[in-house]
Amino acid sequence: MKKELKYIYDVQKELTVLGNISALLGWDEETNMPKDAYLSRAEQQEYISVLIHKKVTNPKLYNYLNKLKKKKLSRIDGIVVNKFHKEIKKVRNIPESFTKELTKTASIAGAKWREAREKNNYDIFKPELKKLVALKQKQAKMINPKLSPYDALLDDFEEGMSAEKLTILFEEIKKELILLLTKIKSTKKYKDQNRIKITIPEEIQKRNVKYIVKKMLLDRKRVNLSVSAHPFTTSMGKNDVRITTRYEDQLGSFSAAVHEGGHALYELNLPDKYRYTILHDSPSMGLHESQSRFWENMIAKNKIFWKNYYSTFAKGIKKIEFKKFFLKINEVKPSYVRVEADEVTYCLHIILRFEIERDLMNGKLTVDKAKEEWNKKFKEMFGLTIKNDNEGILQDVHWSMGGFGYFPTYAIGSIYSAQLYNQIIKDLPKTKSNIKKHNFKPIIDWLEKHVHSKGNSMLAEEIIKKTTGKGLDPKQYIDYLNEKYKKIYSF
Amino acid sequence: MKKELKYIYDVQKELTVLGNISALLGWDEETNMPKDAYLSRAEQQEYISVLIHKKVTNPKLYNYLNKLKKKKLSRIDGIVVNKFHKEIKKVRNIPESFTKELTKTASIAGAKWREAREKNNYDIFKPELKKLVALKQKQAKMINPKLSPYDALLDDFEEGMSAEKLTILFEEIKKELILLLTKIKSTKKYKDQNRIKITIPEEIQKRNVKYIVKKMLLDRKRVNLSVSAHPFTTSMGKNDVRITTRYEDQLGSFSAAVHEGGHALYELNLPDKYRYTILHDSPSMGLHESQSRFWENMIAKNKIFWKNYYSTFAKGIKKIEFKKFFLKINEVKPSYVRVEADEVTYCLHIILRFEIERDLMNGKLTVDKAKEEWNKKFKEMFGLTIKNDNEGILQDVHWSMGGFGYFPTYAIGSIYSAQLYNQIIKDLPKTKSNIKKHNFKPIIDWLEKHVHSKGNSMLAEEIIKKTTGKGLDPKQYIDYLNEKYKKIYSF
Repeated sequence: MKKELKYIYDVQKELTVLGNISALLGWDEETNMPKDAYLSRAEQQEYISVLIHKKVTNPKLYNYLNKLKKKKLSRIDGIVVNKFHKEIKKVRNIPESFTKELTKTASIAGAKWREAREKNNYDIFKPELKKLVALKQKQAKMINPKLSPYDALLDDFEEGMSAEKLTILFEEIKKELILLLTKIKSTKKYKDQNRIKITIPEEIQKRNVKYIVKKMLLDRKRVNLSVSAHPFTTSMGKNDVRITTRYEDQLGSFSAAVHEGGHALYELNLPDKYRYTILHDSPSMGLHESQSRFWENMIAKNKIFWKNYYSTFAKGIKKIEFKKFFLKINEVKPSYVRVEADEVTYCLHIILRFEIERDLMNGKLTVDKAKEEWNKKFKEMFGLTIKNDNEGILQDVHWSMGGFGYFPTYAIGSIYSAQLYNQIIKDLPKTKSNIKKHNFKPIIDWLEKHVHSKGNSMLAEEIIKKTTGKGLDPKQYIDYLNEKYKKIYSF
Repeated sequence: MKKELKYIYDVQKELTVLGNISALLGWDEETNMPKDAYLSRAEQQEYISVLIHKKVTNPKLYNYLNKLKKKKLSRIDGIVVNKFHKEIKKVRNIPESFTKELTKTASIAGAKWREAREKNNYDIFKPELKKLVALKQKQAKMINPKLSPYDALLDDFEEGMSAEKLTILFEEIKKELILLLTKIKSTKKYKDQNRIKITIPEEIQKRNVKYIVKKMLLDRKRVNLSVSAHPFTTSMGKNDVRITTRYEDQLGSFSAAVHEGGHALYELNLPDKYRYTILHDSPSMGLHESQSRFWENMIAKNKIFWKNYYSTFAKGIKKIEFKKFFLKINEVKPSYVRVEADEVTYCLHIILRFEIERDLMNGKLTVDKAKEEWNKKFKEMFGLTIKNDNEGILQDVHWSMGGFGYFPTYAIGSIYSAQLYNQIIKDLPKTKSNIKKHNFKPIIDWLEKHVHSKGNSMLAEEIIKKTTGKGLDPKQYIDYLNEKYKKIYSF
């Protein structure tokens, strides 16, 4: 089996290099590329995609993987073969003509979605969304006819998770979050919070971002920090992780940098021994998100994080009282827009989307009725009436790209982040004083040991269970929120 | 011949896309890539290089080109086939094992050159340089055994040019430049110029760079401006040109931006009809350099350029008298370092290097004696004694990379730039008043029409001759310098 093993590792190495090149093309497009170059860039990306497609659909690869699957292999080789086999089978189960149709439909749907956004009119997007939903249902059957369509798609982002399990957990969270929100809304602080205003000039935002990135040990020799319209993280080889932020609102640039910094630490600390293999990755989007949320919320929205730091952070700006500042960075405020949501309402946004996409995929909801459903659910959860489609069903890009099954990973990440925070405090009793001192090395090392170093060799929930003793456990997240916001809003 | 023609155009398109990807990998390495990522980047670049190598050495390509060469084709197809055939033949004449040896030797020579620079000791570099010289001589014979080794290599950078022709022209320039330098050195202004000091904070440098880039119509939608240790220009597809500058010295960032801006205009205005073919390029490095020098020297070191602009440029800095400022930006000062040289001494640096590399390649000078020769020539031309190797023979990276035959293109560019300037003043009588107003559109259009739009469909000297009535004509350059510096230094 030596020849076959060598071959499949060689292919993984080639796919890694091609993936790195593609990541650079994508990163550059969002950060530096002159706007009018998009057609050239599309050509370059397509060229790399075609090369990747050729590699993964080569029959030799599948034959070798089939052979290897029947053999006794070392533990790691066995995992690699199984994971790679699953991926390749998925690709092979979908005829190229279908993939082309899907790509084309998604591309048109994207354009129609943008047009619908411009005209604030869901009807323009609806016909394309119908086509996309039908195609994705078809694709789900091709991927795994034994699973419900939604579960088959979810597997791509959150292997091992199911709609059934999420439905139960999310019901519980939803109830609790609505209750917490009601309590917050009844407080005096909630009523007064709109009066708090902070203005931070871009230069000072930049200084603070630079500071925190450095404190998170995101060394310039290994991590690039740039600006893009939507903050994101990507990596493209050993010691080459890129994070972005944007300097448009007052506190957002700092939060975004910390959030992306959490992703970056994951990418940086994936184990070198798995490099060039399918295991040099996180096992799920949710686990990746747990890292960004951990840093963004548990660390950088933590009172102890700010206590000593606030005066440094605020140097050069019109200073407001610390209590007010801390309330402002944790301000809870139901709004229409997911990406601007606070810690408490964020998961409500996600659960709403999860319920709708689950029902769309599993045939319990039609595209025609989806808008009505969205608005009804939104009223129930947020107590707000949606006045136009852009505020509602048109607000996210995901579905227009065919990305069904992605949304729940945001909530899963939030839940995992609370579980990890609880555990690290148990494991390392000095954590709080380290957060106070911005001494993050022990935290980073702990995350590396328990999460990052596993790569993609275990399922996300297995990693969490092994580390914290429990699988996905929303109770810990709810407790964390209740405790934190009770103090902040004094109810 | 339809099938064959289609095939060779398809290959050119693929090579264009691969070249664009490689250009991005290279640009990013100099601008944004975290330092420690160099090994991953080398891997990615090598992957693309191997793909390119496979394309260009595919026997089918050569067979088709041979067939097409014998056929009657349209004028443009004929030029494409001839140029492409010449390129491919060149690659095919060199065995892969030789290319590998050369690459490896150059890589070691590069490392040894850096070590030699650190220790300021030519002896460390000498053994590697010997190997490289021998290999390049061998390569030259493989490329074209009918030419002298130097001419065979020069052809890569400056097609149609020869050492014989350059030797005659450069002799003339050398004599004139030394004479001019002597005159300048005898003036009072020369003696006093060291006292002029200008300090420009980085923010103000940036403001001025932004201004001039915009005035040169380098629209952000098509041109990216970044920072790198060594300013350069690269392009990677339609509407995607990248220029860089550096903000290390006071006036250098502005000059560098204008210089690179000149290169950028060439790249932007190459004709779209030639895109994806071998004709979508400049015919020579010298002609490309003529564009950067034209903007850097003829435009942005011109008195009329500064007359009205100086007060805007100097806003926010400690202003000095305009006369002093203008002297400073045109300051002539013999120094050891080529890249810091002024307009008058620059070509002397080049001629020295040309004479040495020509004699090295053609066997008239040994690597052992090259340092002695360098120092002797330097004393003759500049009147200065070289005190250590870093100031002398170790200063440029070119030879350590095997880049013999590149240096003269810098001087050729300077000469062409003067010829173009003279011609544009004849063709467009309002040019001077346009330079005064920073209204560069007519100049850019003229350069596009006479230079850029030709792409690589004519030789550089043919383009210059067609436009100015004369081939490479150093007299115009000498006259330009004499006239300009006579006024500046009042002799």
